[in-house]
Amino acid sequence: MTDLHEKPDLLRYWVWLSLVFGAGSMKLLSYLQKLGSPASVYDAVQAGMLRDLPHSAQKAMTVHSLNEADNIVYYCRTHDIALLPLDSEDYPPMLREIGTPPVLLTAMGNTDLLKNPLSFSVVGTRHPSEYTERVTTGIVSALAKTGFTIVSGFAKGVDAIAHAAALHSGGSTIGVLGCGVNVNYPRENQHLRELLLSGGNGLLLSEYLPGSQPTPANFPKRNRILSGLGYASAVMEAALRSGSLITAQCAAEQGRYLFCVPPADVFDPRYAGLIPLMRDGAIPLMSHEDVLMVYYSRYPQYYPASENGIRPSERLVFGSAEQSSADTPPVQQELHRRLPKESLPTLESAVSPAPLTAVPGASGAADAGRNAFAQDAPLPDDEDGKRIVLFLREHGDTYADDIADALDMDLSVLLSALTMLELEGFVDSLFGKQFRAV
Amino acid sequence: MTDLHEKPDLLRYWVWLSLVFGAGSMKLLSYLQKLGSPASVYDAVQAGMLRDLPHSAQKAMTVHSLNEADNIVYYCRTHDIALLPLDSEDYPPMLREIGTPPVLLTAMGNTDLLKNPLSFSVVGTRHPSEYTERVTTGIVSALAKTGFTIVSGFAKGVDAIAHAAALHSGGSTIGVLGCGVNVNYPRENQHLRELLLSGGNGLLLSEYLPGSQPTPANFPKRNRILSGLGYASAVMEAALRSGSLITAQCAAEQGRYLFCVPPADVFDPRYAGLIPLMRDGAIPLMSHEDVLMVYYSRYPQYYPASENGIRPSERLVFGSAEQSSADTPPVQQELHRRLPKESLPTLESAVSPAPLTAVPGASGAADAGRNAFAQDAPLPDDEDGKRIVLFLREHGDTYADDIADALDMDLSVLLSALTMLELEGFVDSLFGKQFRAV
Repeated sequence: MTDLHEKPDLLRYWVWLSLVFGAGSMKLLSYLQKLGSPASVYDAVQAGMLRDLPHSAQKAMTVHSLNEADNIVYYCRTHDIALLPLDSEDYPPMLREIGTPPVLLTAMGNTDLLKNPLSFSVVGTRHPSEYTERVTTGIVSALAKTGFTIVSGFAKGVDAIAHAAALHSGGSTIGVLGCGVNVNYPRENQHLRELLLSGGNGLLLSEYLPGSQPTPANFPKRNRILSGLGYASAVMEAALRSGSLITAQCAAEQGRYLFCVPPADVFDPRYAGLIPLMRDGAIPLMSHEDVLMVYYSRYPQYYPASENGIRPSERLVFGSAEQSSADTPPVQQELHRRLPKESLPTLESAVSPAPLTAVPGASGAADAGRNAFAQDAPLPDDEDGKRIVLFLREHGDTYADDIADALDMDLSVLLSALTMLELEGFVDSLFGKQFRAV
Repeated sequence: MTDLHEKPDLLRYWVWLSLVFGAGSMKLLSYLQKLGSPASVYDAVQAGMLRDLPHSAQKAMTVHSLNEADNIVYYCRTHDIALLPLDSEDYPPMLREIGTPPVLLTAMGNTDLLKNPLSFSVVGTRHPSEYTERVTTGIVSALAKTGFTIVSGFAKGVDAIAHAAALHSGGSTIGVLGCGVNVNYPRENQHLRELLLSGGNGLLLSEYLPGSQPTPANFPKRNRILSGLGYASAVMEAALRSGSLITAQCAAEQGRYLFCVPPADVFDPRYAGLIPLMRDGAIPLMSHEDVLMVYYSRYPQYYPASENGIRPSERLVFGSAEQSSADTPPVQQELHRRLPKESLPTLESAVSPAPLTAVPGASGAADAGRNAFAQDAPLPDDEDGKRIVLFLREHGDTYADDIADALDMDLSVLLSALTMLELEGFVDSLFGKQFRAV
């Protein structure tokens, strides 16, 4: 019984820290690392010992109490919502390795799915083409049948198709939400939610506490979890400046494999976001076998002989023997040896292409724009967005690293937020990861 | 006037050697290297000094005389056909670098085009989809306008579209034929032939002497010239076992860049030949800019500032500065660092996939099949094909290298011929570049 008593005692601190620091706080992670336990961080905050406490946390600590945290823990226990703090045995191991892992996850459904190393994330547009629907269904179904857990963002479009294909083919799936796991969002997916939770093969996962409503700022942050849960992610369809590209960026920053379905039409703007990904070396996703080959090299023990005769082990052993005895080096190596590395645009530039006018020499003009904003200039709705825009208006063009330091935000979270702000027209990305308020 | 007298004197030997040794003879190249001049090789052949003279040449030398060669030289002079031997100043320099360069080229049209280093080869199916027509026209037109000479095989389908797009956009184009340059083949392209030769921006090129009719064996050999002429080739559309894949294989063996248009539909068999190319690292061709970037790194001096504002120089300089200062390594490098090299199939295996039953341990069964062919078993029509099939029937399973040595054929020419024979059902490719008569 010790366990039952102790666990809520610890959980209440995790929940309280979640309430106070919000999602993706680097500073909270560093406090936890320094002080060792969530209770110690709570004590240090309460005692005013943390001089560099972010402003947002200073404000939030006056609003949220341990009592509120206890109520949330109780709510979760009575509503089949698992609370998985960073030190939990059930916390997904690959997610723990990313730059800014969520300190507390909430989950509804089968948490065993978090232990499946064959975890593959699928993202894409909310309005996919008929082709993308077909490819997503085909590849996801084949992977799900092979034992992969399909991770996606539970949005409509590609996400919903991927979740449904995994479940319909008898496989398993995880939906990573930008709101509380008990919030029925988006409404279109209500049936999918029931399907996912009723069959024992589904899990809803979130770093937002139960009841949290979806806000625009949540979704880009959520994307680092999508890519962080598994060894590889895939973008199925994306226009330029699509939110899916944030997941791609996260995957790159986390050192995870990134796939993308090649553009079905290189002139069709619906697929234009895939082009820079392909140029940056995303692996073309053309069959579930492409995924099998990548995972096999890392997880050979998880590959059963499949019913349809596809055994990546055989293919790979053959390929390897063939290759080592071949006189001609594979094109793969040859091409990449020959292709000058500096001629390739970075993913960074692909995701937030620098406008051609913003060359380094033009930074004088940028400085001139500092402080030129009216007091009543419009601001984004979300807290992070507001802070970033106000910071940029005050400080002028700033490197992302410096914004992240100043605002105590994880760099990848900040970059995601900046991409959203750019889409909303609040900021412009300049050359070399610099940003400017518009 | 010395020039005019000497040149035919030398040309007659080049023509005679072409007649006697045929296209793609390694042995002829080695004789030329050893003996220094075509006249010396002629003398050595006539004097019976070359003990390892291939059987086919022994037979052919009794049929062809220097007189016949003189007549061909005269015919070319009087019909505006240029004869470009391997040592000619007008011989395309990159073609000279390949494993088995043609010893003698014939050309009709503007031979200056052979000097343009911005030479880009385009190949693909004879029956392209509407999408491939659109992409080929779009990318070729843009490249032709930028100053590229578009090389293709003058077949119907993708080839004809590429040639026409180059000419219609005011650019230049080279058609590499599998027959004599004065042979009107294929008939469908008669109008294109006239268009190509009339405007001063076109060239027809061949290693077959005037009047040579197209034979099936010519086309795979021709493909090494397509890829050999320039720094890069592209496959626009290809089904599995398509002839276009031979060009891809040649490009790989020649160490040239290989592009391919990503499959428009990963489940459509019309594009299935592109999938192994993509897996082996062919560069996705999604815009003419992909080509500009690759060529720019090699030929920066050839890039004018283009009218539409695309200046690869700018992009590259920016990209390079950006990249060197970025903290995150580009996905490109990251992915290829992480992807285990031995897990990738080779282009070899992609072009001639080894049947799963043909594992090394099964070679005993293969030996048992030796000499089991009826005397009247059907044979291919062409001479090379016949020799290969008869050789395999007599010797059982043999490595490509050994066949090439035994039959005095260049390896890439042999592999092309083997691919054709496999398509025609005469041979099977086994594991590890072994081949078997069927």
